[in-house]
Amino acid sequence: MEEYLAGIGPADEAAMRAATERQLSLTKPAGSLGVLEELSIRVAGMTGVCPPEVPAPAVVTVFAADHGVHAQGVSPWPQEVTAAMLANFAGGGAAVNAFAANNRVDVRVVDVGVASDVEALDIVHAKVRAGTRDLSVENALSDDEVRAAIGVGFDLAGKLVGDGYRCLLTGDMGIANTTASAALIATFTGATAADVTGRGTGIDDATLAHKTEIVSAALARHEVPASDPLGALAAYGGLEHAALAGYILGGAAHRVPVILDGVIAGAAALVAQALHPAAMDYCVAGHRSAEPGHAVALKTLGLQPLVDLDLRLGEGTGAVLAYPILTCAVRALTEMATFESAGITSNEDPADATPGASSGGGVA
Amino acid sequence: MEEYLAGIGPADEAAMRAATERQLSLTKPAGSLGVLEELSIRVAGMTGVCPPEVPAPAVVTVFAADHGVHAQGVSPWPQEVTAAMLANFAGGGAAVNAFAANNRVDVRVVDVGVASDVEALDIVHAKVRAGTRDLSVENALSDDEVRAAIGVGFDLAGKLVGDGYRCLLTGDMGIANTTASAALIATFTGATAADVTGRGTGIDDATLAHKTEIVSAALARHEVPASDPLGALAAYGGLEHAALAGYILGGAAHRVPVILDGVIAGAAALVAQALHPAAMDYCVAGHRSAEPGHAVALKTLGLQPLVDLDLRLGEGTGAVLAYPILTCAVRALTEMATFESAGITSNEDPADATPGASSGGGVA
Repeated sequence: MEEYLAGIGPADEAAMRAATERQLSLTKPAGSLGVLEELSIRVAGMTGVCPPEVPAPAVVTVFAADHGVHAQGVSPWPQEVTAAMLANFAGGGAAVNAFAANNRVDVRVVDVGVASDVEALDIVHAKVRAGTRDLSVENALSDDEVRAAIGVGFDLAGKLVGDGYRCLLTGDMGIANTTASAALIATFTGATAADVTGRGTGIDDATLAHKTEIVSAALARHEVPASDPLGALAAYGGLEHAALAGYILGGAAHRVPVILDGVIAGAAALVAQALHPAAMDYCVAGHRSAEPGHAVALKTLGLQPLVDLDLRLGEGTGAVLAYPILTCAVRALTEMATFESAGITSNEDPADATPGASSGGGVA
Repeated sequence: MEEYLAGIGPADEAAMRAATERQLSLTKPAGSLGVLEELSIRVAGMTGVCPPEVPAPAVVTVFAADHGVHAQGVSPWPQEVTAAMLANFAGGGAAVNAFAANNRVDVRVVDVGVASDVEALDIVHAKVRAGTRDLSVENALSDDEVRAAIGVGFDLAGKLVGDGYRCLLTGDMGIANTTASAALIATFTGATAADVTGRGTGIDDATLAHKTEIVSAALARHEVPASDPLGALAAYGGLEHAALAGYILGGAAHRVPVILDGVIAGAAALVAQALHPAAMDYCVAGHRSAEPGHAVALKTLGLQPLVDLDLRLGEGTGAVLAYPILTCAVRALTEMATFESAGITSNEDPADATPGASSGGGVA
């Protein structure tokens, strides 16, 4: 782990100060781009450059894996749907494919732990094991499996940056993965199982009660403290959560923005945060999922979601949806005219004009 | 007006029913794309086709005008900033230019009533008069001026659709335009001046109190009922509000989606709604502005904003930011595989599978 963490440092303060100052010089009322101004300043800090380059091209990596706890009936869908959806991603027929094509984001699909054989698919094959063990009866993963899955994500992030990608988006697929997510989120936030366990794809009240009980009993059985992120991954999995944590750390190590999708990414980001808090300097919350644990996770992560449209699909759809908001924010900072270059002042006497108080917006 | 309104009909119910049914067949849990599912169904209704084509290319039209009420000190910025920003739009240096370039939206700039001479700029010249009269002392516009400005927007919408655009976005620029917007919003929603008058580009408490008093007194002076939208435009202006109302009606008449920007567009949309309620079937709220009147307007319009990021710039920035969300929504409906085509069923026995209950998402 040390080699993964050694390369991660905090965002560049000087670049952020320069970006904050530059925002005040742009032809708009100070603060009028709201959250996007803060976002652009954060990207300057991530990349260490002001004005930053537009973070493109972008890629969404869908880490797929299965979960032994599926045997406990926490999801109505057969485990085989994970593999079937991988074929759908590979064929370009899933929601994430449609969104990604629209928003000029490439898609990578990674088998990091699917239970069935998907060797025939044209995806990245990095299976650590064929699904986790059942977290309700034993540890989901061994320590070696945890490290191997983290390494899959970390190494892929490095390869993608090496291939020229300048923005990494998270995606995920795995039947029963909201159960493992709930256990991880409870571990790192101190929330109860009831606070963070949700309906996933849309289970009924009885199944939700059962799922919540499974999560609650697992938390009591494993008793992993928030200070032991590798232990939490071993206890609860999943392989995609571990790979996502590595991918987030890899993005941070390479100083590129990482856009998080929903609740699975949120759980993985809590692991990454526990391993190295500065990793969060490189994370952007793409959206807020309808799954209740996600808002709880975002609060502890200290991230504000860009989009809140009641999505609960996963796959990376929320991250891909948010990507143009990130690039718009950066392009405004990088490409807009300044008051000086546009020859605009805020009042009759240019000598009294301060750039931050100058006008120029459509809302006046 | 009758010729403008005659071509507007409600959204196509059959196309919306077909889109609702198609959503249930796509490879994702039913409802898991949240607001985007509803949005895609609305676009099917607007265009009368299911699955609808992706609404592209898109254009944001920035209608610019000045306001006589500026003389009352409702904004700290000189009126000349309107013209200076038009030069900035024409030169590609404004926020809307950066966002539009990022999101593949073309920009049109229209002088429908700027006080100063902007003839030298390479924009659309359709000046009805050089700014409105002061709404605090007289009617801002004559009836003929109102009709002429509505015609500018309506005719331009038709020309843009004729040129091949399939999505119209609203933009606006005009120092003091939040004052006219507040009066219009109060007229159509029944809200008080205090409810709907805001800080625009960022005025101080004393200026806000003065601005609110101006709006309150104007409402008492003109006493226009909500049933008289043309009278409201005559009383309060502005020329860009009238043009935007015409543009919205034009989009509706041509059955293309119209993405509204912020509070100025919201005020104009209330006029369009009062002229023909079915026009709202073609409107999408791009974002919710920080200006307080906007949320009030959206409630009466019956529209849910797609983005809520504390923007208060205008220019069309919020509409342009939302455009990829609209196209993602449509592309999901149009391009995703169905359970049948992907060969995915929800349980062990395909005979029991109902498409709406089938799984396939990453959040499971």
